[in-house]
Amino acid sequence: MAKRLTPADMDKFFNPQSIALVGVSRSGWRFGGLSFMRKLIDAGYAGRLYPINAKADDILGVKAWPDVASLPEVPDLVMVTVAAANVPAMIEACARKGARHIHLLTAGFDELGTAAGQEMAARLVSTCERHNVWLIGPNCMGPYRPAARLAAWGAIPGVAGPLGIISQSGGMTQRLTEYAASLGLGVEKAVSVGNGSVLGALDFLEAFGDDPLIKVIGMYLEGIDDGSRLLELARGIGRSKPIVVIKGGQSDAGSRTVASHTGAMAGRAAIWEAVFRQANMIPVQTLDGWLDALMAFAFVDPPRANGVFIIGGGGGTSVLYGDTFVREGLRVPPLGAPTMARLREIVPEAGSIAGNPLDMWQVFTDTACLGHLIDMAEEEAAVDLMVVDRLIARNAFHMPETPDLTAETIDMLDTRSGRKPIVFVVDSEGGDSRLAADGAAIRAAFGRAGYAVFPSIGRAARALSRLYRYYDRREKRV
Amino acid sequence: MAKRLTPADMDKFFNPQSIALVGVSRSGWRFGGLSFMRKLIDAGYAGRLYPINAKADDILGVKAWPDVASLPEVPDLVMVTVAAANVPAMIEACARKGARHIHLLTAGFDELGTAAGQEMAARLVSTCERHNVWLIGPNCMGPYRPAARLAAWGAIPGVAGPLGIISQSGGMTQRLTEYAASLGLGVEKAVSVGNGSVLGALDFLEAFGDDPLIKVIGMYLEGIDDGSRLLELARGIGRSKPIVVIKGGQSDAGSRTVASHTGAMAGRAAIWEAVFRQANMIPVQTLDGWLDALMAFAFVDPPRANGVFIIGGGGGTSVLYGDTFVREGLRVPPLGAPTMARLREIVPEAGSIAGNPLDMWQVFTDTACLGHLIDMAEEEAAVDLMVVDRLIARNAFHMPETPDLTAETIDMLDTRSGRKPIVFVVDSEGGDSRLAADGAAIRAAFGRAGYAVFPSIGRAARALSRLYRYYDRREKRV
Repeated sequence: MAKRLTPADMDKFFNPQSIALVGVSRSGWRFGGLSFMRKLIDAGYAGRLYPINAKADDILGVKAWPDVASLPEVPDLVMVTVAAANVPAMIEACARKGARHIHLLTAGFDELGTAAGQEMAARLVSTCERHNVWLIGPNCMGPYRPAARLAAWGAIPGVAGPLGIISQSGGMTQRLTEYAASLGLGVEKAVSVGNGSVLGALDFLEAFGDDPLIKVIGMYLEGIDDGSRLLELARGIGRSKPIVVIKGGQSDAGSRTVASHTGAMAGRAAIWEAVFRQANMIPVQTLDGWLDALMAFAFVDPPRANGVFIIGGGGGTSVLYGDTFVREGLRVPPLGAPTMARLREIVPEAGSIAGNPLDMWQVFTDTACLGHLIDMAEEEAAVDLMVVDRLIARNAFHMPETPDLTAETIDMLDTRSGRKPIVFVVDSEGGDSRLAADGAAIRAAFGRAGYAVFPSIGRAARALSRLYRYYDRREKRV
Repeated sequence: MAKRLTPADMDKFFNPQSIALVGVSRSGWRFGGLSFMRKLIDAGYAGRLYPINAKADDILGVKAWPDVASLPEVPDLVMVTVAAANVPAMIEACARKGARHIHLLTAGFDELGTAAGQEMAARLVSTCERHNVWLIGPNCMGPYRPAARLAAWGAIPGVAGPLGIISQSGGMTQRLTEYAASLGLGVEKAVSVGNGSVLGALDFLEAFGDDPLIKVIGMYLEGIDDGSRLLELARGIGRSKPIVVIKGGQSDAGSRTVASHTGAMAGRAAIWEAVFRQANMIPVQTLDGWLDALMAFAFVDPPRANGVFIIGGGGGTSVLYGDTFVREGLRVPPLGAPTMARLREIVPEAGSIAGNPLDMWQVFTDTACLGHLIDMAEEEAAVDLMVVDRLIARNAFHMPETPDLTAETIDMLDTRSGRKPIVFVVDSEGGDSRLAADGAAIRAAFGRAGYAVFPSIGRAARALSRLYRYYDRREKRV
């Protein structure tokens, strides 16, 4: 049943001036109201917090209230974490107070797969309908918005940015927001919808479609009641905002787990694929693939076409890099004669390879040389986007000691006049902690500067392929 | 032209008691003899080093010699790095001295794609044939063997172990050895063969097949003159040793680069695929995939069948984990009733999911619980191998502070009586340096303890799928 969330509703959920927490123990570590409240304080949430606990005077230094009725105002948002059996009464108490926007963390409803669980869910829905309550949940982490310091989970306080994330898994949303934030890729709004008994993923998809601050949408779906509504919404929204979607439960093993996880029916893989294709949604299959695609769409302008210029790599790696991009459906075209003539002037004959991919060690150690190559590629008609392999200096190589050129490279990029998209690959795989830390720091620096960055050529190629295909199809449809 | 390397030849190349370096500048940084010599000293090479330089008394503290003729003994191995034009005369000088095992670093032969380059290559080959010289190269990094501290490139001093690596790319070999060493995965012998003008990849494949210290072979190939010899050798060797192969230059872009890189003809992708299938070789496409497959074959015993038990993950991640393994052709079977009954006793009803995959937070914080689950899986007929997601504690999660349990977990594993293979996933993706460093350290600890470890579920699934299929096909053929 479609619910139309108004901007005012969205404001209550994602920009609450006050939050009541129902079901907050006084102390200790326990997943629930207290851990949510602690995270909100850590995040620097600046609105009014009302922990409800009849036995406490204050909790974490904040005045506690005996019940919702006694609160000095109607809270914008209520986070409910009491035991499942007590939920309906609590919703009624909220409604009596006038609070109509609730996040219900509590599990133990239809996802149990039992008759009792189904009955609990039905009662929950009828209670909300009777009192006109908008409820996110049950069995979920709820709303998240770094700009409002509403960050009781995921990256804390998080990074504000262009993403809108809708997820039927709290864990996936936490991982995604944390992962994105570490790379400077920000989230405008995220919502973990859980069982979606009242407000579901599609209600938020519709609202995110209308949200001017959200440029790219990421969805983790396990099941959807109303496939035709998904198709209709995604078709419309997808014309202006890419929707990157993971569909969990495509296998028997996955769908067995879905049934116990959110109670949703997983549906057949082929049907989902057809839906995604018809709506020009971007299906991905793993957390990594989700993040990579979101990063590409958030940071990379639509390329004119699919000619990639690959800069960096050694001999063998260049060969594989070329293969990798072609396998993903992009082109690694030969460069025109004038560009090749210019390249041959600067590329040493032995030990390097002038061409595309370009194998030339100097790009790792000489920012001006890299800038020169980028300028050259701007003028080369065959090139639509550039991929730069930022190899980290390693003991394994015969290379002179080189200081970290990341800041210098970003300065160079920020002042270039060219407009062709450029992305970076910084590979620091393996078990070497120093290399891993350096690689992460360099990736973070590129991401924070607004440049898409990937940890391997394979992942860059896949994300850029998705980017290109989305815009190519969109253009042909419009 | 097939060359049969004897054990004595292999000893000269990979266990040299003395090495002459021809073309060593006195000081400064330059890729070549001096950088090779410096790396050998760094690696702790304990044999006798003879730098050849007519103008120097000593180089890097080692007595220098005016020419090969004046050396006090016949060096086992000569590393030649002089300019291409001087190479034939230098080979003749070596031969006159009686030195017959040469590594030629110098580039500028047939890989140039010019008539002059072809002529240089032909002259090189005829010189070697006339003097009965075994030459690795030109245009390559040559032999590498950590056990002999023969490590002038790649991981230095490297880690000795079961791998034999043969590569037409020096860069790929350096990356692979460094990457593997960081995870405790060791190399017995590696060789970068370059243009392979005299000794080629297949000559070393044959020798590695006979080498009792090599258990798993990795190859990076760009082109092979003699496809039927590859097929014949691989068929024989592949019955006892898995051969994991990357074929570079499968795309136009890649093969354009191959021509300039080693001068080899790249051939058609479909033909290569047929060859690999017929020989039960394991084709991979990226450096990551190469490492992952080599790790699986080196560290994981053949599973009885393809039933995977996935331990860890949250709700949504478990769903995706199941999908991922099934997509890679493995099974994530339901567990039998007795196992499920035991699981339900220990898995909380709400917030976790008893089953396969198993979603249970306790496995991240309680080693005894993990051990109990592993024992349970040992007795479960549906399970052939286990995959454990070792989630690193993150600020994003609502979890109690947990000390790093890696050492405790390894102790637990080392004392378990079960025999089913178990592998680990430790994901520390993104731009957080601390998380990245922690993840790398944990992966290194598992790898050094002999447990296969992967940085994502997707990569684990792919590597294990390759492992399973190889043994399954091998069994059916024998």
